[in-house]
Amino acid sequence: MAKKGKLIGIGVGPGDTELLTLKAAKVLESVPVIFSPKSAKEKKSIALSIVTPILEKRKDYKRLMVVEPLFPMIEDQQELEKYWNSAAELIANYLDSGRDVAFITLGDPSIFSTYSYTQKKLANRYEIETIPGITSFTACAAAKNEPLVEKNDILTIVPKIDGRLDNFLEHSDSIVLMKASRNTKELESAIDEKNRPKEVFSVQNCTQENEKIVEGFSTEKPYLTTTIIKFTDD
Amino acid sequence: MAKKGKLIGIGVGPGDTELLTLKAAKVLESVPVIFSPKSAKEKKSIALSIVTPILEKRKDYKRLMVVEPLFPMIEDQQELEKYWNSAAELIANYLDSGRDVAFITLGDPSIFSTYSYTQKKLANRYEIETIPGITSFTACAAAKNEPLVEKNDILTIVPKIDGRLDNFLEHSDSIVLMKASRNTKELESAIDEKNRPKEVFSVQNCTQENEKIVEGFSTEKPYLTTTIIKFTDD
Repeated sequence: MAKKGKLIGIGVGPGDTELLTLKAAKVLESVPVIFSPKSAKEKKSIALSIVTPILEKRKDYKRLMVVEPLFPMIEDQQELEKYWNSAAELIANYLDSGRDVAFITLGDPSIFSTYSYTQKKLANRYEIETIPGITSFTACAAAKNEPLVEKNDILTIVPKIDGRLDNFLEHSDSIVLMKASRNTKELESAIDEKNRPKEVFSVQNCTQENEKIVEGFSTEKPYLTTTIIKFTDD
Repeated sequence: MAKKGKLIGIGVGPGDTELLTLKAAKVLESVPVIFSPKSAKEKKSIALSIVTPILEKRKDYKRLMVVEPLFPMIEDQQELEKYWNSAAELIANYLDSGRDVAFITLGDPSIFSTYSYTQKKLANRYEIETIPGITSFTACAAAKNEPLVEKNDILTIVPKIDGRLDNFLEHSDSIVLMKASRNTKELESAIDEKNRPKEVFSVQNCTQENEKIVEGFSTEKPYLTTTIIKFTDD
């Protein structure tokens, strides 16, 4: 029986192709199948556009297999499960045929990544390797030349606001609001009014050509917006 | 007057040279001065050993300027300030002479990095660029092929245990204990006894040759040990 392929999860970083790791670039220079989910049929996957400059250098670029399944941005868990299952089966077909599959994902594969849902469905059945990537929040801090945390600071990464936020506003030293485009004015006011001295900045499209750093919460909020709150009391 | 040099802070990742970014590698292939603090005179800097395979390929490797100032691991802030000030002035000398300086730091420059203290002292005086790096905690999760956070999980990064830990044990979904070698048995018992279903694993020397993943807290604790606590309740 032919040897089965390996699934390789690759974090492609926040936007700049140069923020791929050497390890990721090496895989992308030779892997036969690239798996790049997208959130809407008419949109190009951001992860795919990040790796395209690497892929284009390949001699076999025109014959390269790029699979772009739809992973819609919906909240319905049962519906989502169907998409992940069919993606996992699609990947399994390639692995069974002996081909390695690189699953590319924005940022890092272990931080709110669709890779993790798919990967779990293939665990124990296939060899899996996960290559970490630059997360958006450290790239945002780097873009502003400012540390996220120092000394004994505690850092909290919040993907979506829920009732627990107030607790973190009380006890964390730095807070990263991922996908800040979902913030509401009310939430921002609540944070602003919190009785602790703080610095707030937002980074839009970090490391991409249209990167923009703004003080405070941003009024325009493209999808890739991150807000960082640093409390300055001791 | 000669153009001043640029300070480039570079996150070199957790250990594997292949986890450098393309951007970091490119700088390291040509920068005239490498600044690599070390914690003890007799020790080799881990950050330096990570980039050495890149540096060794340089034609000018033997003439390359590698500066290794001592940044001791002490708690006394006033003492530390002296070391950072003298490091900043040392860097300033190189920058004034028109040479770029790459300040290499383990993991990412914005997460508990000595780079940030030095960099602040040079801000506004020189051009500064910060290149993010792979953080230890996403590398640890990748090594175990397991996500740190999914969906609406909240992630907390804790460098050192203080009175606030209990609060995070209550409200976070995942907790990263950095530098877990400082954990005490008492602390581990306190976490273990916390009345929430959880999974705990520790990674020693992540992505390095002697990497070791253990379930639970690790009994032997080399300096580079990270413990990840994932609560499995909803």
